[in-house]
Amino acid sequence: MQLYVLVFLTLAVLSEALKTPVSLSFPVRNSSAALRSSTLLLAGGATTDVSSEQAKSGLGWDSHKAIDAIPESLVNAIEGNESMRRKFEALCRNAQNNICKAIEELDGEGTFRSDAWVRESGGGGISRVLSNGKVFEKAGVNLSVVYGTMPQEALKAATERGVDRAKGMQPGERVPFFACGLSSVMHPKNPFAPTMHFNYRYFETDGGVWWFGGGTDITPSYLNVDDMKHFHGTYKKACDKHDAEFYPKFKKWADDYFRIPHRGETRGLGGIFFDDMNDRDPEKLLAFAADGLASVVPAYVPIVAKHKDDPFTPKQKEWQLMRRGRYVEFNLVYDRGTIFGLKTGGRIESILMSLPETARWEYDHRVEAGSPEEEITKVFQQAREWV
Amino acid sequence: MQLYVLVFLTLAVLSEALKTPVSLSFPVRNSSAALRSSTLLLAGGATTDVSSEQAKSGLGWDSHKAIDAIPESLVNAIEGNESMRRKFEALCRNAQNNICKAIEELDGEGTFRSDAWVRESGGGGISRVLSNGKVFEKAGVNLSVVYGTMPQEALKAATERGVDRAKGMQPGERVPFFACGLSSVMHPKNPFAPTMHFNYRYFETDGGVWWFGGGTDITPSYLNVDDMKHFHGTYKKACDKHDAEFYPKFKKWADDYFRIPHRGETRGLGGIFFDDMNDRDPEKLLAFAADGLASVVPAYVPIVAKHKDDPFTPKQKEWQLMRRGRYVEFNLVYDRGTIFGLKTGGRIESILMSLPETARWEYDHRVEAGSPEEEITKVFQQAREWV
Repeated sequence: MQLYVLVFLTLAVLSEALKTPVSLSFPVRNSSAALRSSTLLLAGGATTDVSSEQAKSGLGWDSHKAIDAIPESLVNAIEGNESMRRKFEALCRNAQNNICKAIEELDGEGTFRSDAWVRESGGGGISRVLSNGKVFEKAGVNLSVVYGTMPQEALKAATERGVDRAKGMQPGERVPFFACGLSSVMHPKNPFAPTMHFNYRYFETDGGVWWFGGGTDITPSYLNVDDMKHFHGTYKKACDKHDAEFYPKFKKWADDYFRIPHRGETRGLGGIFFDDMNDRDPEKLLAFAADGLASVVPAYVPIVAKHKDDPFTPKQKEWQLMRRGRYVEFNLVYDRGTIFGLKTGGRIESILMSLPETARWEYDHRVEAGSPEEEITKVFQQAREWV
Repeated sequence: MQLYVLVFLTLAVLSEALKTPVSLSFPVRNSSAALRSSTLLLAGGATTDVSSEQAKSGLGWDSHKAIDAIPESLVNAIEGNESMRRKFEALCRNAQNNICKAIEELDGEGTFRSDAWVRESGGGGISRVLSNGKVFEKAGVNLSVVYGTMPQEALKAATERGVDRAKGMQPGERVPFFACGLSSVMHPKNPFAPTMHFNYRYFETDGGVWWFGGGTDITPSYLNVDDMKHFHGTYKKACDKHDAEFYPKFKKWADDYFRIPHRGETRGLGGIFFDDMNDRDPEKLLAFAADGLASVVPAYVPIVAKHKDDPFTPKQKEWQLMRRGRYVEFNLVYDRGTIFGLKTGGRIESILMSLPETARWEYDHRVEAGSPEEEITKVFQQAREWV
């Protein structure tokens, strides 16, 4: 879901500046056919009944429609680094296929349903969701390609993270932007098999500004130190190939971002999280994102394979569901992309795909002293180093 | 939960004005003893490690503590209409006892656990929760009494609802405020027995400003027109005793407030909701709040009694859990009191008592044409008149 964060922040500012709601419509939605071929290039033509700002930005509740076949590319021609856009989209689509294939093999029963969408202003998406498999309660891998234009004030106001996203533009000129990303959440059934989330994204504006963001993080209900060494170790290795500073920096960023302040806990046991990355050759960052995506399967699948048939008690299942309640709390209360998306007309089913199928809240639940539930709670309260 | 809304809104402005977070600490928390006697008057003395603004306002994460016995009154002596405060608290405590008694009788097995709290600056609360009963999955009835002081800018900025809450104050003078309320959510197990929520509250500031707010609303998973006629009819009768305009106005207010915009639906089938009421003799509004509270049992209990043993299928239970997912979405994404409370240090277990014990999200779930699930969904999408 972090894909949306920057676009959302910028649009939030835009919305404020214009005193009119601005909607970001996600391009994925139900289509009855589950199609994976890439044969059709579509250009929509229908007019929509959205505000003029929505119309100008090409973003709105009603600006997306289901398609029966997935086009070869969702990237259209606006001025900018079209080559990188196409490369990033291709990277995401390839990763989506590989990851879904590995998850289907691991599950052994469930298959991913595909919903493809295009938006009339260009761009679109492919949502793939596996529901009620043998191993996975719910697993989703969503590709989104989003275009639009926004006033420079909105872009300028979004520079607090250190990037001037409107540089080189004329006063009053609207800034076209582009965002492409792959995001995923997987919730296994067995309480000893952790939930995993990842998102990798590339942003661009016509002002010549671009940046990469993303990360992968894991959310177990029970602590298994070997698993955490494996997961974090896999990502440390992927990071170290590119920059020795990446893993420590992005590991801490994940610990900070995935915090639930009202609980004084993290959502899970972290991983890596990064944003606003544009401090080196974009090809190098593309290669880093590629390694992040390529590490999803080796970092995660062996852990689920190891635990998918672990015996468990009803009490352990309840604990997992309570941790899923925390997952819901984080996503609905703190994840800025989720909140902004819900409030401004995003594609609901794609945004909320991240929620677990079931979650639980017990009044004033306390973990037992010395229990495995207390053991992992202490790590949620105080992040630990794994590698 | 609406109890907190106005305090929260005001504190949000205050927090913004001061560029420092202001926490509202709810006064209820776990105490191992379940005590219902009223024998002890407590005055706390421990110092807390909160910010100076929190210290000044008497509100903070750590400013509440569990007590072993419930004091006779949680209202302390600050300048204002102490008589109304005490009357309102007495009304709430009496209603809490009566409602909990009726729910325990209906449940037949579960009993309410009581947690009492005081805050050092005065005020406190009594939280009563029944978990995993025979009929009820979770039922909570919380009394809160909150004191504090806030800058006038905060009060003045909160006048958009038509009440000047800082009138008569000197520049720079801090405004003491008082809030007392009873709030409740009840989630029965049977999918044909609706969830119910109510909240009645009284606010006061030293500027001589006071107002009442509250309401009761019902959230069924399946439509039963007779039940809705009974529930709304009971509240219409209670309203009509006081003002013929109350029911139509407050019914519409509830339909508007309990909307989930991203779903294009209401959370449930409404009831009454009102706020900022100070347009007549406070004694008259006290009498109206008393009737609202007195109507909870006759409006709700017969409906649950009628449906608590209805046969149901696993699919119907799943639908109920999906509607509970919507309940979670409303409370965590839109209920301003909940969000502000979570982000600023409220008493988490009291705030989240409103969440159901279990909730469910299915990717892109669609109701079947002509099904009972579709029937009620249409009413969630387009509010109906019942009486």
